[in-house]
Amino acid sequence: MAETRDVRPGEVAIDLPAGFDAGVHFIGRIRTPFKTRGDCPRNTAQSDAVGRVEVEARYWAGLKDLELYSHAILLYWMDQARRDLIQQVPAHLTHPRGTFALRSPVRPNPIALAVVEIIGIEGGTLTVRHVDCIDGTPLLDIKPYFASTDSVPDARRP
Amino acid sequence: MAETRDVRPGEVAIDLPAGFDAGVHFIGRIRTPFKTRGDCPRNTAQSDAVGRVEVEARYWAGLKDLELYSHAILLYWMDQARRDLIQQVPAHLTHPRGTFALRSPVRPNPIALAVVEIIGIEGGTLTVRHVDCIDGTPLLDIKPYFASTDSVPDARRP
Repeated sequence: MAETRDVRPGEVAIDLPAGFDAGVHFIGRIRTPFKTRGDCPRNTAQSDAVGRVEVEARYWAGLKDLELYSHAILLYWMDQARRDLIQQVPAHLTHPRGTFALRSPVRPNPIALAVVEIIGIEGGTLTVRHVDCIDGTPLLDIKPYFASTDSVPDARRP
Repeated sequence: MAETRDVRPGEVAIDLPAGFDAGVHFIGRIRTPFKTRGDCPRNTAQSDAVGRVEVEARYWAGLKDLELYSHAILLYWMDQARRDLIQQVPAHLTHPRGTFALRSPVRPNPIALAVVEIIGIEGGTLTVRHVDCIDGTPLLDIKPYFASTDSVPDARRP
């Protein structure tokens, strides 16, 4: 935990369960131009940044045929985020919002999701566009993007 | 692990690391009409099924303002899936494909993702459309869907 235990006005922290229910493997790392959280764009739409997804050799065979897709979904582990805030006041809001109504890295399971454009794959390294995370962020999964199930162009937000 | 260790022709199993790198909390359960994997639709596009996302009381405050969004992304844990297949031959293909080019529940970190329409939220229960998983599947996260970053209507697939 790189962050303090401080809670800002309006924010709510909870006690998390003492143990975990399941475990994850870090299957690689995402390399980006962003060295600190302050460097990171607020989200992938605000970044055309190109990054590299470096998959561990053990998992390389899993990339077969991924190049047939134009886009992928990356799931990654926000290892520098605290997990106990259930309501947060992001910089762009004045009122607290529930953690599950935010894309903040701070959440009980700090799993982030980014839709990226696949530029190329060579060996165990993907070159992708629209990265937004800190350099070295642990990778959990890569999924092919399916417009039929994943794209909702007219989804409403406040 | 509810499945056997069998590997079908063309499929490739790997040795996974002995330990885990991080742990997850199950924050709730997804209730669906599907009692077995055989009952489940192949994906969310093939299902208008309505389900309930039952969030544990500890996390209810995290749902504040989620009703402002029309759609959400659910992340859930495919607890009945084996994790060691790195190439698979799904029923609709004749050749093996890499696990990261498939949306199969079988993957090193069996985290699945579904984009669902939010029908209603009452207390700690969301009613949603487009569920595809087995009844009782453990929930990991709920995120608001942002068309700006998550929707790529023209994404290509084979």
